[in-house]
Amino acid sequence: MSRRKFLSTAATGGVILGAPAIVSAQPTIRWRMPSSFPKNLDTLFGSAETIAKYVTTMTGGKFTISAHAAGEIVPGLQVLDAVQAGTVEAGQTAMYYYFGKDPTFAFDTSVPFGLNCRQQQAWVMDGGGAALMNEFLREYNVHNVGICGNTGAQMGGWFRKEINTVDDLKGLKFRCGGPAGQVLTKLGVVPQQIAGGDIYPSLEKGTIDAAEWVGPYDDEKLGFYKVAKYYYYPGWWEGGPSTNMIVNIKAWESLTPEYKAILQAACSHAYAECMAKYDARNAAALKRLIAGGAILKAFPRPVMDACFKASEEWFAENNAKNPKFKKIHDNWVKFRSESISWFRVTENTFDDFMASAMTRRG
Amino acid sequence: MSRRKFLSTAATGGVILGAPAIVSAQPTIRWRMPSSFPKNLDTLFGSAETIAKYVTTMTGGKFTISAHAAGEIVPGLQVLDAVQAGTVEAGQTAMYYYFGKDPTFAFDTSVPFGLNCRQQQAWVMDGGGAALMNEFLREYNVHNVGICGNTGAQMGGWFRKEINTVDDLKGLKFRCGGPAGQVLTKLGVVPQQIAGGDIYPSLEKGTIDAAEWVGPYDDEKLGFYKVAKYYYYPGWWEGGPSTNMIVNIKAWESLTPEYKAILQAACSHAYAECMAKYDARNAAALKRLIAGGAILKAFPRPVMDACFKASEEWFAENNAKNPKFKKIHDNWVKFRSESISWFRVTENTFDDFMASAMTRRG
Repeated sequence: MSRRKFLSTAATGGVILGAPAIVSAQPTIRWRMPSSFPKNLDTLFGSAETIAKYVTTMTGGKFTISAHAAGEIVPGLQVLDAVQAGTVEAGQTAMYYYFGKDPTFAFDTSVPFGLNCRQQQAWVMDGGGAALMNEFLREYNVHNVGICGNTGAQMGGWFRKEINTVDDLKGLKFRCGGPAGQVLTKLGVVPQQIAGGDIYPSLEKGTIDAAEWVGPYDDEKLGFYKVAKYYYYPGWWEGGPSTNMIVNIKAWESLTPEYKAILQAACSHAYAECMAKYDARNAAALKRLIAGGAILKAFPRPVMDACFKASEEWFAENNAKNPKFKKIHDNWVKFRSESISWFRVTENTFDDFMASAMTRRG
Repeated sequence: MSRRKFLSTAATGGVILGAPAIVSAQPTIRWRMPSSFPKNLDTLFGSAETIAKYVTTMTGGKFTISAHAAGEIVPGLQVLDAVQAGTVEAGQTAMYYYFGKDPTFAFDTSVPFGLNCRQQQAWVMDGGGAALMNEFLREYNVHNVGICGNTGAQMGGWFRKEINTVDDLKGLKFRCGGPAGQVLTKLGVVPQQIAGGDIYPSLEKGTIDAAEWVGPYDDEKLGFYKVAKYYYYPGWWEGGPSTNMIVNIKAWESLTPEYKAILQAACSHAYAECMAKYDARNAAALKRLIAGGAILKAFPRPVMDACFKASEEWFAENNAKNPKFKKIHDNWVKFRSESISWFRVTENTFDDFMASAMTRRG
């Protein structure tokens, strides 16, 4: 092709004019994808909607995914079961919800004193995490396509009274789930399992003493600051919890390479959008919460240290009794140590300097 | 559809059997995408390769993008010019390389004491950054599809002697580019423009006193630790520099909605992969560098404070003389303040606790 001709082609966007119409080999598919999240968690459920929108758009409507909020098709905590049984092809969920079946699931979302959101993505994509988790998930007939969302480090929750010492945890009725509840039990906390909509009245009546949810943007909607004003951080049990798109293994294996790549890329785009929304919107929400009376508090260092020690015991107990857990833990714990040792050098130093500079600058 | 029939459909992955073959409306396209990065920066150039691979796979080869390392089609720092002129349809680059045309470009990659990688993605996707930058880029005939890579916070570089006071910067011949060079000039540094391959001999001979490149994984390949052992952090001029995929505006506008969505999702997937690789691989590289004799050093606080002050002057000067710069700066600086104020609460506290816990745990 002459340079002149090439330039003319390039200027029209590289379209090869007169190329023959191509008969697509891609099958027409419609999938339903229930989510574990309600519509009012618009960042988390929004990831499911983004996946649905992008897959449908990228394929010109040939591969259509419909996203369904928790409860529309199946209850939010039964997404895995529905995908496993093949009653739906796909689901968007947080794998630690299935921690009761096996604590190993939690590595796919977040474990106490675990990875931040970047470290979690790095472990999954480049640290061996994806292969290990998918090997584990295979016996549940599901394939984890990839991370499709993350909240960033969560807040520690809303407390009716201050936590000044480790002893203040004794007898504390704290709404929190999964591994964190088991760890905190070691320190005398009485974990409470309460659905999102029931937390506010329970806090108001004093039936519970404290509750964790997500972070400012999501917490604000539920109004906790009106009934439990101490807003603690960090949520050490969820330093970077990720959500995932899971697909029934037969459905996954039936896909063409085109459609598999489309699902992977859609997950990554949904992840970027979800993280961006939280990182952009939590700031303003926190300001409003503080203006409304919320009092920010960091967990005292001795409390953090005691919780870290209790978590180490929790890992050791699970390693001792669960070979699947231990197999993944051994890879994960090495990654955690190395990755965090690197982050503490330039990344954390930059972040900490900027935090203090912004405080001084206003 | 009966439940029985639905379940049978679902079990085959939702494929609607017997659906007619569909004649695709998607045009056949071949694009060339030069990169600003050489092949040995396999994480950064890898993003271009990932985009090419995913776009080609997702479209079953109908939309083919070929990625070309710096120098193959155009020199690395002329990617924007080639896309602007339409000699190529797309490019993968870091927009701050075009800072000489207008410092406003730098907001699309990184500016001194700017955003970390998550904050940059949040500003672009949810803080108004994408619209502002694309309005600015339109006069260069290019459209920024999205962030397709990031290095994370970079290191401050390799120094032949220690930097203990602000005075130690005076007369320092430092290989560094763009805005950082202008800021450091205010403190007496003499910025040097030297291509990657020439840095090592210049440091060895003492023609220059210091050089910054990226971080452990990339720096290790160039062997700087052998000739300048002090490895400083943080690289405050690149707290989260992102790379972008840019497309000639006519080429972009000629794309179908399907192909536009495919490019966006491919960028997000390349970004996730790039960040994951750096976050997973820098740790081991840093260990090897230290074993090889590199001495880790944090810039002293007074040096950081002086650089921050000089950066604030640099922003003020550009705001005063460049209305395009000011328009974007005004949005950006508000975002920086709010976003960092939020990060310092739970995210930085979690990271800092984990860093100290890992140090104690070993």
